[in-house]
Amino acid sequence: MTPLQGWSLPLSPHGAASLVPPPPWHFSGEALGIDFLADPRAVAEVLPEGLEPVGDGSASFVFCDWSSSADADPRVLADPTRGQYKEAYVALHARLDDKSVARVPYIWVDNDLSFARGHIQGFPKKAGNIAISKAAAVGKGGPRLESGSTFSGHVSSLGRQLARGSVTLAERAAEGFVPTAMRLPVWHTRLVPDLAGGPPLVHDLARNLVSDFAVADVWTGTGALELFPSEFEELAALAPLTLTGGFRCSVAFTILGAEVRAI
Amino acid sequence: MTPLQGWSLPLSPHGAASLVPPPPWHFSGEALGIDFLADPRAVAEVLPEGLEPVGDGSASFVFCDWSSSADADPRVLADPTRGQYKEAYVALHARLDDKSVARVPYIWVDNDLSFARGHIQGFPKKAGNIAISKAAAVGKGGPRLESGSTFSGHVSSLGRQLARGSVTLAERAAEGFVPTAMRLPVWHTRLVPDLAGGPPLVHDLARNLVSDFAVADVWTGTGALELFPSEFEELAALAPLTLTGGFRCSVAFTILGAEVRAI
Amino acid sequence: MTPLQGWSLPLSPHGAASLVPPPPWHFSGEALGIDFLADPRAVAEVLPEGLEPVGDGSASFVFCDWSSSADADPRVLADPTRGQYKEAYVALHARLDDKSVARVPYIWVDNDLSFARGHIQGFPKKAGNIAISKAAAVGKGGPRLESGSTFSGHVSSLGRQLARGSVTLAERAAEGFVPTAMRLPVWHTRLVPDLAGGPPLVHDLARNLVSDFAVADVWTGTGALELFPSEFEELAALAPLTLTGGFRCSVAFTILGAEVRAI
Amino acid sequence: MTPLQGWSLPLSPHGAASLVPPPPWHFSGEALGIDFLADPRAVAEVLPEGLEPVGDGSASFVFCDWSSSADADPRVLADPTRGQYKEAYVALHARLDDKSVARVPYIWVDNDLSFARGHIQGFPKKAGNIAISKAAAVGKGGPRLESGSTFSGHVSSLGRQLARGSVTLAERAAEGFVPTAMRLPVWHTRLVPDLAGGPPLVHDLARNLVSDFAVADVWTGTGALELFPSEFEELAALAPLTLTGGFRCSVAFTILGAEVRAI
Repeated sequence: MTPLQGWSLPLSPHGAASLVPPPPWHFSGEALGIDFLADPRAVAEVLPEGLEPVGDGSASFVFCDWSSSADADPRVLADPTRGQYKEAYVALHARLDDKSVARVPYIWVDNDLSFARGHIQGFPKKAGNIAISKAAAVGKGGPRLESGSTFSGHVSSLGRQLARGSVTLAERAAEGFVPTAMRLPVWHTRLVPDLAGGPPLVHDLARNLVSDFAVADVWTGTGALELFPSEFEELAALAPLTLTGGFRCSVAFTILGAEVRAI
Repeated sequence: MTPLQGWSLPLSPHGAASLVPPPPWHFSGEALGIDFLADPRAVAEVLPEGLEPVGDGSASFVFCDWSSSADADPRVLADPTRGQYKEAYVALHARLDDKSVARVPYIWVDNDLSFARGHIQGFPKKAGNIAISKAAAVGKGGPRLESGSTFSGHVSSLGRQLARGSVTLAERAAEGFVPTAMRLPVWHTRLVPDLAGGPPLVHDLARNLVSDFAVADVWTGTGALELFPSEFEELAALAPLTLTGGFRCSVAFTILGAEVRAI
Repeated sequence: MTPLQGWSLPLSPHGAASLVPPPPWHFSGEALGIDFLADPRAVAEVLPEGLEPVGDGSASFVFCDWSSSADADPRVLADPTRGQYKEAYVALHARLDDKSVARVPYIWVDNDLSFARGHIQGFPKKAGNIAISKAAAVGKGGPRLESGSTFSGHVSSLGRQLARGSVTLAERAAEGFVPTAMRLPVWHTRLVPDLAGGPPLVHDLARNLVSDFAVADVWTGTGALELFPSEFEELAALAPLTLTGGFRCSVAFTILGAEVRAI
Repeated sequence: MTPLQGWSLPLSPHGAASLVPPPPWHFSGEALGIDFLADPRAVAEVLPEGLEPVGDGSASFVFCDWSSSADADPRVLADPTRGQYKEAYVALHARLDDKSVARVPYIWVDNDLSFARGHIQGFPKKAGNIAISKAAAVGKGGPRLESGSTFSGHVSSLGRQLARGSVTLAERAAEGFVPTAMRLPVWHTRLVPDLAGGPPLVHDLARNLVSDFAVADVWTGTGALELFPSEFEELAALAPLTLTGGFRCSVAFTILGAEVRAI
């Protein structure tokens, strides 16, 4: 009997049913980010053991509109329902081994491939509805990539709005500028509980191995952000005390694998 | 007592609940179109009295990813869930008063503002799930705007896939080129049935009065298209016999009002 | 040439594409309602000319989980995606010709047939996401139809939660009891704006002609309700000042047509 | 520093953000099942090593409309968007240790809690849109629980319809009858790939430990079923060769944990 095929569930005779193909995975999209300072104690509380708080509560809330592809599965690129998705997340600044890193404690996404692929990375994804202003190339139906335009994003989950933010573009960033929220390595917790009652089957820290990072059309500006309470979330504890800026850019990278460390 | 406010339902004391604001409405988006020849008899059968078939069965299937705004309601631009939507439709070539016109017998959309606004125009919109490849500005997560890239679209409604199409880009169109499907005036049937049992409350032909039409980044290429049967549709009767091309462009226009003629 | 077929748009050669079939329409479902008193002035402000306020601000917020069918279109019954939908609305008590009537100023629904059918009646429907507790027949996965069980509902639109309510069942209602919110005739405003710039193409008052009304498994209890602000709504002005009860029942009726009166 | 809380991701200071609470989990719902014989070779091919084919290709396609709750998280019961979901799956008959068991190679669901909870069990869930006829308690809006009524279900994913089935009720089942598809223990493959490039982090066979199983209102009848091809699935290989019956029932059970065996 031929063994069942698939890097991830579901397994099937020819491997065509498998939800997540193996890396490398490629990502291209637009990011809208609002930088802010939250209560440093609230930031410290949501960091896992091993990550040290920076201490100033610096954080970013990011809305992304992604296209993705996978070398091992041409269907992800070919079909827009498969590879495209929107997500919204908060990224907190932290330190690991005395280097600047980031932690994404909460993230919402609207696509099952991205959900499952995220959990394999340790991205703690939940389902959400995410809306993000698109840039208009012509006409007045949407904001143009120009000074004074406002781009907005919001995310809801289980019928509750969780976050609303916007960036009013001020100026095109200098060549080579990369928003901080886009360049810090993100350390995740991989965690798989055991339904059989034992300790977690997987429990470690992991970060993505990334290559081919690129940005384009980077604009900076002023940000606005509100985080709302939900009995299903602890996001609101990270509400902005001070808004420190905003950005809007095109961004791309490739995920090759992961670096893991034990807890 | 102050009268209730609103150009459209719902009426409310301050007019803030109204779904559709009055024109002018502005539209900016991306269009992916596949040109084809259908059975000329099938095309003729779906034209209303008053429109003459061209005779060759020429038609286009178009997927659009829109942002929209309205002078009278800044919320449509400000909030991406309000003004953005995707739609898919078939456009048939016809003649009226010896001029080239188009008819859109079937169209699906994923947003209630667009649905209601469409019915006010005579666009016979139904709800659907529409997917369209986005252009990647950087990286390999999605198709780039370059020769050889394939952009795809599909639409489903009530769980049935109705159409799948794609365009493989060949070359950037010459300055000033506008795809036929984007430039023909579309004549709709406005129809409002009377629940009280009388004849239709509204029944006439209408076309949008359009200004500020613009295109950008127009590419042409080869198209592929399949239309599928559904017991809720008659779209499949318009299945392509010959594929005659394809395009992908950014497009914008403004709708100012309507020209109407009696039936 | 055979004329195009369809009681409503879209018209098609065989009438199979038409979204809304003509009445009679049949409805069967479950209703969860919270009765309350709102600010009488806010209630009066949202009544159209012709309807008189009762004066005490009495109102109900109702969540419904419907199945529907149509004599002229067996597909509505046969396919669960076509005929089933959820809706949420507020009903205000009023008087017309010295009789008790109701007005539904705001309503949200999750199905395009119901949306379009509603607008034909004058129901001012907008799209929303509605969640309603189902009754569990066995087991502990959901609330049972028994004293002390709590049934909940909520509705969101454009990512904002608009209303959350619940009813904790106290006792099964006496034979023949019908909740007020289920038995008052509802007077709608039919309104179709003219894109060509003229006065509304349709503008009158209408109520459904209803037959075969039935209820079953009627429970009464205590209600809880919160209405939330949204910049797209004026619902929050009707927030409950006093909660006066709640109910949960199965309900059915048939819509045969409409009675109309000029404005 | 207090450690982060949560049985599953996301971890948070107070554990309120965690998506999946620990068992026991309770399930109450309605199941609509079509029993059939598929190509025995196709059935054998999709069984994992360790499960033996029965040889006759016996299988069931099941549509379920669930409510769920969890002892450790009252929010799952209290909020209908959290605990309710629909799913569709195919169950194949097999043998393990010379006992009758089942295997669910493919399953689709419309809720992220159910998705993540399923993957913890080894249920290979993907996202889908599922529609299932509800039973009408009164009126003619939906099918009644009576002889001759037809209940339908369908599932689509990524815009493609994958399966459509129906059961026309013939008679109420005898007291104590439980449809085979509802009572066989289901053996899953738990599989968690390692992004760091190693062998799977988890790879074993598991079945749920179930208690408090109950059925009610069990009807049997004749089934109809179509499975459709999709380039993202291998479901169509299991298409029915012979239809052997159908059922519709209310059903409930509790999941306490899992029994696991190594591969």
